[in-house]
Amino acid sequence: MDEKHSFKIESLGEPRFKSPLQLSTVKGDRIFNFIGESERLVFNPSLEHYNHCFTTRDSPLCMEKAGPRQDIFFEPEKVTAAIVTCGGLCPGINNVIRGLVMALHYFYGVKKIIGIPYGYEGLNPAAGHGFMELTPDKVKDVHQFGGTFLGSSRGAQEVSLMVDTLEENHVDMLFAIGGDGTLKGVNAIGEEIAKRKAKISVIGIPKTIDNDIDLIDESFGYGTAFDVASSILKDAHNEATGAYNGISIIKLMGRDSGFIAASATLAMPVVNFVLVPEMDFELEGENGFLAALEQRLQQKKHAVIVVAEGAGQHLFKDRKGIKDASGNVKHEDIGVFLKEKIAAHFKNTPISIKYIDPSYIIRCAPANSSDSVYCSRLAYHAVHAAMAGKTRLVSCKVNNTYVYIPISEVTKQRKKIDLEGEFWFSVLQSTGQPFFM
Amino acid sequence: MDEKHSFKIESLGEPRFKSPLQLSTVKGDRIFNFIGESERLVFNPSLEHYNHCFTTRDSPLCMEKAGPRQDIFFEPEKVTAAIVTCGGLCPGINNVIRGLVMALHYFYGVKKIIGIPYGYEGLNPAAGHGFMELTPDKVKDVHQFGGTFLGSSRGAQEVSLMVDTLEENHVDMLFAIGGDGTLKGVNAIGEEIAKRKAKISVIGIPKTIDNDIDLIDESFGYGTAFDVASSILKDAHNEATGAYNGISIIKLMGRDSGFIAASATLAMPVVNFVLVPEMDFELEGENGFLAALEQRLQQKKHAVIVVAEGAGQHLFKDRKGIKDASGNVKHEDIGVFLKEKIAAHFKNTPISIKYIDPSYIIRCAPANSSDSVYCSRLAYHAVHAAMAGKTRLVSCKVNNTYVYIPISEVTKQRKKIDLEGEFWFSVLQSTGQPFFM
Amino acid sequence: MDEKHSFKIESLGEPRFKSPLQLSTVKGDRIFNFIGESERLVFNPSLEHYNHCFTTRDSPLCMEKAGPRQDIFFEPEKVTAAIVTCGGLCPGINNVIRGLVMALHYFYGVKKIIGIPYGYEGLNPAAGHGFMELTPDKVKDVHQFGGTFLGSSRGAQEVSLMVDTLEENHVDMLFAIGGDGTLKGVNAIGEEIAKRKAKISVIGIPKTIDNDIDLIDESFGYGTAFDVASSILKDAHNEATGAYNGISIIKLMGRDSGFIAASATLAMPVVNFVLVPEMDFELEGENGFLAALEQRLQQKKHAVIVVAEGAGQHLFKDRKGIKDASGNVKHEDIGVFLKEKIAAHFKNTPISIKYIDPSYIIRCAPANSSDSVYCSRLAYHAVHAAMAGKTRLVSCKVNNTYVYIPISEVTKQRKKIDLEGEFWFSVLQSTGQPFFM
Amino acid sequence: MDEKHSFKIESLGEPRFKSPLQLSTVKGDRIFNFIGESERLVFNPSLEHYNHCFTTRDSPLCMEKAGPRQDIFFEPEKVTAAIVTCGGLCPGINNVIRGLVMALHYFYGVKKIIGIPYGYEGLNPAAGHGFMELTPDKVKDVHQFGGTFLGSSRGAQEVSLMVDTLEENHVDMLFAIGGDGTLKGVNAIGEEIAKRKAKISVIGIPKTIDNDIDLIDESFGYGTAFDVASSILKDAHNEATGAYNGISIIKLMGRDSGFIAASATLAMPVVNFVLVPEMDFELEGENGFLAALEQRLQQKKHAVIVVAEGAGQHLFKDRKGIKDASGNVKHEDIGVFLKEKIAAHFKNTPISIKYIDPSYIIRCAPANSSDSVYCSRLAYHAVHAAMAGKTRLVSCKVNNTYVYIPISEVTKQRKKIDLEGEFWFSVLQSTGQPFFM
Repeated sequence: MDEKHSFKIESLGEPRFKSPLQLSTVKGDRIFNFIGESERLVFNPSLEHYNHCFTTRDSPLCMEKAGPRQDIFFEPEKVTAAIVTCGGLCPGINNVIRGLVMALHYFYGVKKIIGIPYGYEGLNPAAGHGFMELTPDKVKDVHQFGGTFLGSSRGAQEVSLMVDTLEENHVDMLFAIGGDGTLKGVNAIGEEIAKRKAKISVIGIPKTIDNDIDLIDESFGYGTAFDVASSILKDAHNEATGAYNGISIIKLMGRDSGFIAASATLAMPVVNFVLVPEMDFELEGENGFLAALEQRLQQKKHAVIVVAEGAGQHLFKDRKGIKDASGNVKHEDIGVFLKEKIAAHFKNTPISIKYIDPSYIIRCAPANSSDSVYCSRLAYHAVHAAMAGKTRLVSCKVNNTYVYIPISEVTKQRKKIDLEGEFWFSVLQSTGQPFFM
Repeated sequence: MDEKHSFKIESLGEPRFKSPLQLSTVKGDRIFNFIGESERLVFNPSLEHYNHCFTTRDSPLCMEKAGPRQDIFFEPEKVTAAIVTCGGLCPGINNVIRGLVMALHYFYGVKKIIGIPYGYEGLNPAAGHGFMELTPDKVKDVHQFGGTFLGSSRGAQEVSLMVDTLEENHVDMLFAIGGDGTLKGVNAIGEEIAKRKAKISVIGIPKTIDNDIDLIDESFGYGTAFDVASSILKDAHNEATGAYNGISIIKLMGRDSGFIAASATLAMPVVNFVLVPEMDFELEGENGFLAALEQRLQQKKHAVIVVAEGAGQHLFKDRKGIKDASGNVKHEDIGVFLKEKIAAHFKNTPISIKYIDPSYIIRCAPANSSDSVYCSRLAYHAVHAAMAGKTRLVSCKVNNTYVYIPISEVTKQRKKIDLEGEFWFSVLQSTGQPFFM
Repeated sequence: MDEKHSFKIESLGEPRFKSPLQLSTVKGDRIFNFIGESERLVFNPSLEHYNHCFTTRDSPLCMEKAGPRQDIFFEPEKVTAAIVTCGGLCPGINNVIRGLVMALHYFYGVKKIIGIPYGYEGLNPAAGHGFMELTPDKVKDVHQFGGTFLGSSRGAQEVSLMVDTLEENHVDMLFAIGGDGTLKGVNAIGEEIAKRKAKISVIGIPKTIDNDIDLIDESFGYGTAFDVASSILKDAHNEATGAYNGISIIKLMGRDSGFIAASATLAMPVVNFVLVPEMDFELEGENGFLAALEQRLQQKKHAVIVVAEGAGQHLFKDRKGIKDASGNVKHEDIGVFLKEKIAAHFKNTPISIKYIDPSYIIRCAPANSSDSVYCSRLAYHAVHAAMAGKTRLVSCKVNNTYVYIPISEVTKQRKKIDLEGEFWFSVLQSTGQPFFM
Repeated sequence: MDEKHSFKIESLGEPRFKSPLQLSTVKGDRIFNFIGESERLVFNPSLEHYNHCFTTRDSPLCMEKAGPRQDIFFEPEKVTAAIVTCGGLCPGINNVIRGLVMALHYFYGVKKIIGIPYGYEGLNPAAGHGFMELTPDKVKDVHQFGGTFLGSSRGAQEVSLMVDTLEENHVDMLFAIGGDGTLKGVNAIGEEIAKRKAKISVIGIPKTIDNDIDLIDESFGYGTAFDVASSILKDAHNEATGAYNGISIIKLMGRDSGFIAASATLAMPVVNFVLVPEMDFELEGENGFLAALEQRLQQKKHAVIVVAEGAGQHLFKDRKGIKDASGNVKHEDIGVFLKEKIAAHFKNTPISIKYIDPSYIIRCAPANSSDSVYCSRLAYHAVHAAMAGKTRLVSCKVNNTYVYIPISEVTKQRKKIDLEGEFWFSVLQSTGQPFFM
């Protein structure tokens, strides 16, 4: 069966060196084996798809298995590696940086690791930020802190300028930790590198607190994010029950995808309404949100409402379409909007509204243990890919297995909650809210 | 020496019953002793004050020691007790309720305990909230939850109406958990009761997350509040360092007194500027806040600013003096104001401002262990006072000892940070900010 | 392609009722679809396996997809459901109970739900424990508490006796939350039920804090367990560095499988040695553990050692093979043994050993948010299976998808760390310990 | 009135320099005032004591107020300061170190600060540990970690040898953070210094997780300790209720004083029995502990028992009186003993005992916010005292005010729970256990 359906990973060229890792190539010796270049995993493991492939004699869509290769492209001790973190904060960034540095230094013996400060801005000499030199000693404790100790920034820089900087500093591999925009950016850098026939590997580690990168399992930091969020929902519930007709509105992150709002709701079942960008809903009318809220208050005298920041944008008649530095359309503030609409609706009823926007508290938390484990493994796999000369890929987990996927594939579209899926169904069942409003 | 300088506690009359507590009256038998009616503690224990009293033959100002009395006013098994919680949420309210119920039920054998829902509103029959019956089983786990499970409300109700409700329901003692307004309210209830020659004890347990009740040591919940706040300061620091010229502004509670802002700052020493209501400061000018911030950014490329909600009100030229339901003057939003002023000041410099308002998250937290211990003991002492027929007092801790003080004394003025005191000096030293701005 | 390789799920009979769930059967209407009875997922999604199946024309091993069926076996409002929790504590048990009760009550309208106290003992009338009636109101807050509010017990009860109890109480479905022994037990109950031609569904929800149930992805509670454990590793590190040649030994759970020890180590990278049941290691000798520890102390003056409770059993010459109430062979205490051996080895060197056994603290923690979400979904799927008349299965997640697998399949053997796998490799790389000792 | 009853603070000599602190000496200028050398606080502020003094014309026992002096003994920029941490770990040690370094460096401009590694051992050149140089940059984050980053050790070193080391290294002031033994040790160092007429100030910061240093208010770290402990009591309660006749025994720190056990019990009211060193109790007999436990199990089917490590030593008939390195008598393990006695007593009753010893987890925790604030202020006051040439004192808080007390006074005896005091009464009321057993 051919590989025409595989996500095809780009490479800088044929391997030229033996890996310094003391691994095995045989089963049964209790030593981890190098991953073979042809090891693949099927993307859609449903029997239906299997049968389809069997019938049509099409090969199933496959992903390349992540891990250390026996033959590698770079001579480790001569490598200069660079790390950059872009976009908004997310739990686990420091863990990924730490994992990259440790794997480069201890696994492969890389001697020079550069930290690029303040995102892509740091690749623009005009910004004058300089570089940081990264060593195991400098990063050994950073996993216990939230944020990114390299600093970050939003927005693009000129691609050729950034490649100039990489070439001038003899960088052999660039690890970019960031979201959709960052990944598109590093892919463009990779294309420019290819055009120049330079030998620089570019590797993305997808960072999206919204969990909206396509194809992959949950992104790192997302689990921590809804863990922190769910404990704030408990506070919000205390506020709601602490007043007669108490209403708590909590705005959570989620520009295009409501995963944090939905998971936090499922994790801390005190929520009565959850509103996400994927769903349409009406405020007014017999079946609208306000009518449902009114009914809830009559019955229980309090309500907890979770709203993702990107929800209900269809309710703003005159959207201005202003974009932020990262090129994302700026959202109208649905939280404040809802608060005002609710206040107006209940102007003759005694209610008490509390509005909570905990975004900065959530995104700055240090990674919890599951994310910590996940970040280390993502980082290790990113290093293995770079050393093997692979490029323009993301290190990621799909169907619970670590794989490499081309950046271009995961940035084609955003992952969204499937409103017909079991996850959303569980969320709705947990809140008891109507299917449609 | 006479008692002319004692804080004089009001009483419903001579004791008529023996306490059911199996305590002792002699030292050395390893059993707790009843507190004698004449046990007093000196309010100001400085040697200077002692010498002054010695010289002038004045008695020092004294406080009545809290604790169980051997002779009590009420016959415990016939008592109906009522509990009400008013004003904003604060960690520990549920612990106090739990402590009251447990002490009434287990220590004294009180059979009837009424929970009044939604603050003083619950004493107004027109609100139609009804009463809750409280038992040990109902309250045994409530200390693990933040908020108040009785519900609360702001604002006053007509005093005579509330006393009518108490009389109609044969309430013998009312425990009011609340702040300045609540305490003044329950004192007025006590005065009306006295006028009617009714035999109802009213006891306040001072609740102020701002720690602004006068005379007393730290109020319950305040320690938990700045504990929760200080961990958010760590997040804010992550945000500030995560961006070039990153500025985090955290607005913390503190209408008239900046204790939470100051203590959180001292506890989590990542703060560069703390602004509290007690201090004057200028924004503009050579020695103003903005100049100091500019200098800080030039040196360190990030800054963390903590501002109490009541700080900088002098900066608003056209204060409207609007009052909220509790009768407090509504403050202009200094946090948003600062954010705008900073943005304007640095309009030609690349900065990144994050504004965080975690108030609802802080005030809804469950009490930490120190507050939990404190709340139980405050509640126990409140019950002892009520059973002894004392009234119009607060159960509180002064100079690390539990005492009773008349409500009228602690509501004369708000406690504020002494800008000449060692505490504020420590805070300033910790931030490194100029003494004046 | 036939289904000869599917994990075949047993059924009580043909469906007889329509599901009360208002779901859809078509795509595109934004309503969740009923799961078709023939929906399957391939267990091994490697391309190698697919190619093998294509070549040999064998069907791949498949799993039945979990979820609500349109046609169900039981008439919901007449159903009596029972829930039992067995074996040791594990974070998330209360969440599963809560999820079961909510799904039975709100999704299907089940009116009678029985809580069986103290594990299988509660199905033995001789124990005299009685039953608890479970309602949404009773369980609504239990997810915030660790442990199991139903109580648990270890060990078997006579199967026919237990089935008698179920029949006498007209139980239609039994949900058993427990580990290997519990699942074998409930499978035996299911076999006895089948023999009697009774119509009682028995469903297992695999509970194993050790994560050692075969075939399935991580078990619930395991993520919380290593989260709690990893923060204790930080404490242990503080102890180790707080003394000259400080050595901290932390014994973590893991009778046959060292997953908690390994994941906690990877999550909190302060560990220098991790010892798990899956690995052999020698204490003495040039390449033994003690020599490696000595070298570590010489270099760094402190060491942190994590040992799973089942590790190093080969070191006990005279194993007695005593079994506990659950039928598990009682382990010698490797933690105390190690402590003594280390003390003896370094008898002429100043060292300071701290031994920490935090097992009860870990297993009693409330579930973190990821586990909370997971527990709810496992519970919901368990209820869907039971209502559809399926029996002798576990509700579980494999390759990140919810499926049903026969109990007999997951209890064939314990899941163990693959010493040749990438996970263990990551752990070893993180500690820096030698591959063999 | 003379000062014969004051706790008299020793001094190295007359002040020779002006303080570099820009403070005030007048009230009303919004600048903190220097503390006058004659400012005193009365130790016992009861009115009874005042009246006694008035009558007898005795002066009351007074304490010297802590804080910065206008005239100081040392020339700050020439000072060499040294810091040592001794004995067992306790939350907050790193905060104190941080506070000392910051105050020395930023307040006074001290240029040379030495960290002495591994306790008094570090003052013995034979140990070969060397010194660490401490700077603000090195200590700025240490407050976020538990333990002591300087390392600690138990036991004494020869006094003259330690003073030799101080003199050889031109140390002007030694800050010793430690408990009873450490304070006695540093006092002996101070006496030797006085004998040599050397000008070295020695200052103690009392560190006792057991809260057993006499005279002072709660010691730093103690609040954090019972906060951490109380959350483990919640786990223990889960274990107890999770089994039929489940019994959880938690051993908490407290060699001579049961404060942690008592406060944790009061903070987390799930405890049924608390046993502390201060109380006598019998196991056997009608009124013994085992009979009370039996009654509890019959009523409630579970019990939680907290035992301080030093409790019940009278039950060991053949105490060996072995001493540990710090000179403390080694205790028999009351926890294990209790567990065995309970198991024996109930040998014919089905019970399930869980034994939990969380000591290392508690003592390694980072300080909570109250302790963090407290540690900073203690450290600041310690520095002010040293700069003023005061010596052989502790920086501490009494009656909620910071004062200096001679080391010799606080080491005369251990502070113990007053079994006739209100605190213990509250604890007993909270557990419901009999007054005597």
